[in-house]
Amino acid sequence: MDRLPGFRDFYPEPLPHKDVWSADVRGYIFNTWRQVSLRYGFREYDGPPLEPLELYTLKSGDEIVAQLYNFTDKGQRQISLRPEMTPTLARMVAAHHGNYRKPIKWFSIPQLFRYERQQKGRLREHFQFNADILGDAASGADAEIVALVIDVLRAFGLTHEDFVIRLSSRSAWSQYFSQRCADQERSYEFFQIIDKLEREDPVVSREKLSQLGMSYDEVAAFIASGEPTEELQSILDNLAARGLSDFVKVDYGVIRGLAYYTGPVFEAFDRKGNFRAIAGGGRYDHLTQLISGGKAQIPSLGFGMGDVVLTELLKERGLLPTFSAPAQIYALIEDESLRLGTLTAIQSFRDAGFSTDYSLAPLKADKQFKRALELKAQWTFRLEKNDASELVYLIKTLSTREEQRFSSLEQTLQFLQNQPH
Amino acid sequence: MDRLPGFRDFYPEPLPHKDVWSADVRGYIFNTWRQVSLRYGFREYDGPPLEPLELYTLKSGDEIVAQLYNFTDKGQRQISLRPEMTPTLARMVAAHHGNYRKPIKWFSIPQLFRYERQQKGRLREHFQFNADILGDAASGADAEIVALVIDVLRAFGLTHEDFVIRLSSRSAWSQYFSQRCADQERSYEFFQIIDKLEREDPVVSREKLSQLGMSYDEVAAFIASGEPTEELQSILDNLAARGLSDFVKVDYGVIRGLAYYTGPVFEAFDRKGNFRAIAGGGRYDHLTQLISGGKAQIPSLGFGMGDVVLTELLKERGLLPTFSAPAQIYALIEDESLRLGTLTAIQSFRDAGFSTDYSLAPLKADKQFKRALELKAQWTFRLEKNDASELVYLIKTLSTREEQRFSSLEQTLQFLQNQPH
Repeated sequence: MDRLPGFRDFYPEPLPHKDVWSADVRGYIFNTWRQVSLRYGFREYDGPPLEPLELYTLKSGDEIVAQLYNFTDKGQRQISLRPEMTPTLARMVAAHHGNYRKPIKWFSIPQLFRYERQQKGRLREHFQFNADILGDAASGADAEIVALVIDVLRAFGLTHEDFVIRLSSRSAWSQYFSQRCADQERSYEFFQIIDKLEREDPVVSREKLSQLGMSYDEVAAFIASGEPTEELQSILDNLAARGLSDFVKVDYGVIRGLAYYTGPVFEAFDRKGNFRAIAGGGRYDHLTQLISGGKAQIPSLGFGMGDVVLTELLKERGLLPTFSAPAQIYALIEDESLRLGTLTAIQSFRDAGFSTDYSLAPLKADKQFKRALELKAQWTFRLEKNDASELVYLIKTLSTREEQRFSSLEQTLQFLQNQPH
Repeated sequence: MDRLPGFRDFYPEPLPHKDVWSADVRGYIFNTWRQVSLRYGFREYDGPPLEPLELYTLKSGDEIVAQLYNFTDKGQRQISLRPEMTPTLARMVAAHHGNYRKPIKWFSIPQLFRYERQQKGRLREHFQFNADILGDAASGADAEIVALVIDVLRAFGLTHEDFVIRLSSRSAWSQYFSQRCADQERSYEFFQIIDKLEREDPVVSREKLSQLGMSYDEVAAFIASGEPTEELQSILDNLAARGLSDFVKVDYGVIRGLAYYTGPVFEAFDRKGNFRAIAGGGRYDHLTQLISGGKAQIPSLGFGMGDVVLTELLKERGLLPTFSAPAQIYALIEDESLRLGTLTAIQSFRDAGFSTDYSLAPLKADKQFKRALELKAQWTFRLEKNDASELVYLIKTLSTREEQRFSSLEQTLQFLQNQPH
């Protein structure tokens, strides 16, 4: 029996097979996402991994269904596993935004799903860090979100030599389109062409643009200009004040695929160009309004950063730590008659917060010691009886191999608590 | 647009509505589960939230499908959202156990799903802490697992007056059954009757038992005896050595509903009896063998603890902390011409690890200060220009309202880092 195609198993390190993923790396990435978010004053939320299909077709239309992991449930409801977090967030905020002071600064780490028929070996799920600001229409919020992306990536040890934020503007492109195309209904079609421009054969893009009455060369010239709009300049100035200018550049080659963006948009890329986008996002001022049926109108912006590309990038740059089992103390049981007495001590160590391990089954003394070394324990603990049949408590510091003897558990604990650990 | 029935939205506190759940409480519970697991030397793993339906019907038969959240995917596969974690764990361990030293001690915090037709207002998902030991057949492993359950609940502030572990033995019940029933094929049916005994009308149970040729009164007498088997006594002795005797009692009224248990089983209950089981588990020595088609034979045991009952219990006992936004430092921007300079300082504070917040938009000074108080900030920060037009950096400690002045950002940071925080 095997797992479903496109899904991942997460094992503790060292990994048993190239085909599985590291639960330790995942935990490290999640922790880093959380820590930096909290440092920025963001708070965590989550929604269900399943939503009514309509939540996703409402804005994007039925064509999106081809990419969704959707199905009919036992109650004959049309359901989708969530392909992105923003519609859930918009739904949640629209329902209760009155209870929160604006701007709302929230983050989440949902698992997201998709189901494309033709893929081979491609994943059908990933985890995506999402952070959003809701209730602020000014560019200071855009700068705050871009700064968060930068600082999250910096927290993994990546520098401005590793990645860059390509900053663009959906509104600039909207304006560009509305000044040049007779059929204003086709703006989404235009955005899709621009979004695919870098990956698609220029001949195909040129043909698609000409069908809209647009010039490929003029589009290329607009992208090449790189002239920041007033709004983008304000974001750049804000980031400059934070000392983050090296991490960002204006690049109209970015536009974002999703329909709902309205203002500044951006994507983070590795500078070597070896990977897909590390993160992407932007402003979507009308989404809560749409999802709430007009009841809530909250200017919003945010981004998503997936775990798959990030893990690959960190691995390639040698920035992933190695992980091993947690054991500050390894208790050696060389005399089985002292097992229960040793358990008393183990319980005290754990109660005091020390991660403590030991062999559940009887095991040769040298194998137990070897295990302590494998677990990179800071100390071993050992119980002995002296000639007067009194218990003696021994702590060995493995880095120095020095051993201390104590005549009570209290003294032993006191020693441990006074050590750096 | 609303979420699906039986699913939960998790919001930051204070909660906007009685119908939603706290993301902060959830995070607190997850953290506690993780911390105690690591203290015990357990390592985290995870699998996909979706598995082939067969993984669950293999042992339990098709009748379990009525309770599963199952569906047909676009590739015409029979899929189920995971109703429990143990089959996934058994699948993962069976695939790669050769690469791990035994016993394997792993934990996970999966979201689990079920779909029962008749329910109204009942949840269709919960999060369940799972911890398992694989590769150890002796009762020391059972004691270690029970001790972990106890210490996890203690970590939330619950005492032996709040809860008790009812320890039982599926093997004792198996033996009881095999000595009394002519039709050995019907053991699972018998276990189901015992599992429902406390909730079902005695008349019904008596009738069901008599159909198996069993005596209700004899069953009741066996439960009332409470005589520990040798194996259970060994677990009790082990727990006594840890000082945990007050948290456990032998109680054959527990047998666990799932088919795969083989040895000691247990459930944790609140002593007042106001809630369903807080946790439950036991030994399942044959599951990896079954799931691997005989390739792996790993004696195993473990338990699950859901977030819903636990949250309700902690709430009732007043053991849940209150949560608010993280802001050690709140930066006041009273003069908009100093916004960019303030951002420079904010970036430094955050880089140094201080959670720092500020108003993204211009705001009256008194409202900013009020916001700092709401966020329970430890300090406010403020930039000023002195008469010589030099920048002055001001830190106010909100508990004392004392304000310090510094002439550089470096000095300001140094002061903050030397404060207890």
